[in-house]
Amino acid sequence: MKKLRPLLLIIVCLFFALFVSAQHKIVVFQTDFGLKDGAVSAMKGVAMGVSTDLKLFDLTHEIPAYNIWEAAYRLQQTAQYWPAGTVFVSVVDPGVGSERKSVVLKTKSDHFFVTPDNGTLTLVAQSLGIDTIREIDESKNRLKNSNESYTFHGRDVYAYTGARLAAGVIAFEEVGPQLPNKVVAINYQQAVFENGIIKGNIPILDIQYGNVWTNIDKKTFDKLALNYGDSLHVVVFYNKQKMYEGVLPYTTTFSAVRIGNPLCYVNSLLNVSFALNQQNFSEKYKVYSGPEWNVEVSKYKHQ
Amino acid sequence: MKKLRPLLLIIVCLFFALFVSAQHKIVVFQTDFGLKDGAVSAMKGVAMGVSTDLKLFDLTHEIPAYNIWEAAYRLQQTAQYWPAGTVFVSVVDPGVGSERKSVVLKTKSDHFFVTPDNGTLTLVAQSLGIDTIREIDESKNRLKNSNESYTFHGRDVYAYTGARLAAGVIAFEEVGPQLPNKVVAINYQQAVFENGIIKGNIPILDIQYGNVWTNIDKKTFDKLALNYGDSLHVVVFYNKQKMYEGVLPYTTTFSAVRIGNPLCYVNSLLNVSFALNQQNFSEKYKVYSGPEWNVEVSKYKHQ
Amino acid sequence: MKKLRPLLLIIVCLFFALFVSAQHKIVVFQTDFGLKDGAVSAMKGVAMGVSTDLKLFDLTHEIPAYNIWEAAYRLQQTAQYWPAGTVFVSVVDPGVGSERKSVVLKTKSDHFFVTPDNGTLTLVAQSLGIDTIREIDESKNRLKNSNESYTFHGRDVYAYTGARLAAGVIAFEEVGPQLPNKVVAINYQQAVFENGIIKGNIPILDIQYGNVWTNIDKKTFDKLALNYGDSLHVVVFYNKQKMYEGVLPYTTTFSAVRIGNPLCYVNSLLNVSFALNQQNFSEKYKVYSGPEWNVEVSKYKHQ
Repeated sequence: MKKLRPLLLIIVCLFFALFVSAQHKIVVFQTDFGLKDGAVSAMKGVAMGVSTDLKLFDLTHEIPAYNIWEAAYRLQQTAQYWPAGTVFVSVVDPGVGSERKSVVLKTKSDHFFVTPDNGTLTLVAQSLGIDTIREIDESKNRLKNSNESYTFHGRDVYAYTGARLAAGVIAFEEVGPQLPNKVVAINYQQAVFENGIIKGNIPILDIQYGNVWTNIDKKTFDKLALNYGDSLHVVVFYNKQKMYEGVLPYTTTFSAVRIGNPLCYVNSLLNVSFALNQQNFSEKYKVYSGPEWNVEVSKYKHQ
Repeated sequence: MKKLRPLLLIIVCLFFALFVSAQHKIVVFQTDFGLKDGAVSAMKGVAMGVSTDLKLFDLTHEIPAYNIWEAAYRLQQTAQYWPAGTVFVSVVDPGVGSERKSVVLKTKSDHFFVTPDNGTLTLVAQSLGIDTIREIDESKNRLKNSNESYTFHGRDVYAYTGARLAAGVIAFEEVGPQLPNKVVAINYQQAVFENGIIKGNIPILDIQYGNVWTNIDKKTFDKLALNYGDSLHVVVFYNKQKMYEGVLPYTTTFSAVRIGNPLCYVNSLLNVSFALNQQNFSEKYKVYSGPEWNVEVSKYKHQ
Repeated sequence: MKKLRPLLLIIVCLFFALFVSAQHKIVVFQTDFGLKDGAVSAMKGVAMGVSTDLKLFDLTHEIPAYNIWEAAYRLQQTAQYWPAGTVFVSVVDPGVGSERKSVVLKTKSDHFFVTPDNGTLTLVAQSLGIDTIREIDESKNRLKNSNESYTFHGRDVYAYTGARLAAGVIAFEEVGPQLPNKVVAINYQQAVFENGIIKGNIPILDIQYGNVWTNIDKKTFDKLALNYGDSLHVVVFYNKQKMYEGVLPYTTTFSAVRIGNPLCYVNSLLNVSFALNQQNFSEKYKVYSGPEWNVEVSKYKHQ
């Protein structure tokens, strides 16, 4: 068998090559750049320049300009559905060029988030848990020859660093120095049950359909002990001001009520939500979303 | 050579690994979700969780909300250009949670369509032919831990099943039980020639330019025996009501007429179409598309 | 070692197979089709039909209809960030069916551009340099069975040829006959310094934020010898008509001025640009972009 040793070595190398090419190397991009210009494409070009083995995907590039809250929400909404090891590059960065830190968060779920630490990490830090945060060392992790440009960190720092991390060109430790396990967080009403009422927040709309999504999870909601067919008393506030009040049946399907009628359901993220069957709840009742939009719900008792 | 046998086995395995990685494993997604939120990204994350070897593409996510007809049209417009074996996942699903069936259609062209059977399959079933239809067995083909969620079958059932089928995790037979070779179909005017007149439907607009596309194919159109330079008498109806009448020259290029002038041409799908050179026919003449929009065309005879 | 030769041969073949699959095979698409219909998807399906090893990306499909200038700009903005060998397929083609030539430009940077030669190549030909131009020989490089269709060269000629070139199905020489090293070019004001004033053009807006980007590069701009904190005198013209005049501080960050205040900065392409901090300069001052929009800038001298 002696003569076979070099061959075996070669074969082991081949297996290794196959194995490496089977690592997933996924990068998911999110920005507020839109898709009308070349910014997102330039970011992807930089990533392909790092390694053509990377698999590049989009979360969304239609985050409203400068809306850090929505960026935070979209990451939380989707990260859990991507395999462990996925690298998210999120660039909603009204403070580009100012003192906010550029970081990579590794969560306990083994997802990576490359982003300015400006509130974008508020929700994934809570829901997925902080394993480690590192500040990006731009002296090492910055696209070559990009130093004269001050304003496109998304391409020169975030896409470049995210690609190098996903491709295994750098280990996580090589991102830069470790920071304390704390992110810049946006303040909002968490879901709490007290005296028969659940308080919560409206983090986002299901914008395509105008459905209203709260942050009240099913476990908290179950404390109201509603059965399908029961009704929910709903009050919506913008800061302290009442904006909507109504009584909604709790159903499993939109078609359980007539077209245009309101209903309450548990959405695909297992959060309590309000909708009109085949119409737009948000537009009809002027109910929108963000840290300032709060809700109180309780079981409706027939008189 | 005896000693080489294990080596040969290893090499055969390597070839097999290369071969498998060379299968195309293409999934093409279509929805009415838009790209502003995380829904499409969550579907793709689920698919990557099934197999990171998959190649994920988009048809469009801008189908107008609940517009099953347009979903049907877009599948027919594009499926023929994708390689055999491609798996399409189409989710326009106003009846989510109701009694419509979740199915996979295998066409005679060896394309697969994973979708609610709600009319979405109307046109590909006709043009590509039905080979087999199977109902998705959700007891086996549903994302783990998704049972408490009632409203995002696109992610939990359709993306998951389409990905497993494309990746070879399940064979087509494992989708679920076979159904009769019949899909839920939307009624519309097929292209017919009678007494010198062709009747047909306006299935869709070339929305970016405002061109009007009929379902009159070139073979049927040739029965009018028009030559380039001849003119066509066109009448458009919404249900039975006349909406437009005109005489259009039959040309091969838009620039054959002056800017803003109407023309008739055979489009890229070989269907008879109407346009204005560098302007918007649909907007100018208020001609739109759908099962209710019909057309009659005949050869224009100079008086 | 004799007996091992066939094995070695096999192993060399395997290495070769791995190597080939490691070539980058990138195609980047740009059109004015939008993403609401199936046109872009049909183009990608055709490319996948050529080779499923291709990696397909998008520059943008939101070029305003028929806007060749913007197509030219987006290519210049992004091509440099993609690896050498990348094949760009750009289809903004108001003259489809007329006499414009279908070409492939190979630049000195080793990027390839597959497009109608209608002005689309104006800027990359200048910035990346012309290596060779070939006219596409449609008798060889056209999707099979597409000859009856006259209007979708994007799919039948450009996507098909670009995919074959990127996949190595054809060598660059097989695209078709070589043409003189000259492209159809759109006329515009290049950046020039004269008597203390720089004249230039506004090729594009940073549309998502309303920032105004000029074509004045940093090297030319440095002739004004401005330091950060100095101010710039800016005049904007539409053809010869003055549309805006102002004095803007020259800063490295948007947050150096108050929200809503104007500033001048060097953008991510190292071009002089104008913006309002967190507001829309273009909308507020009705300043837009294109070959007709010119600018004169000089150092502002306090009285």
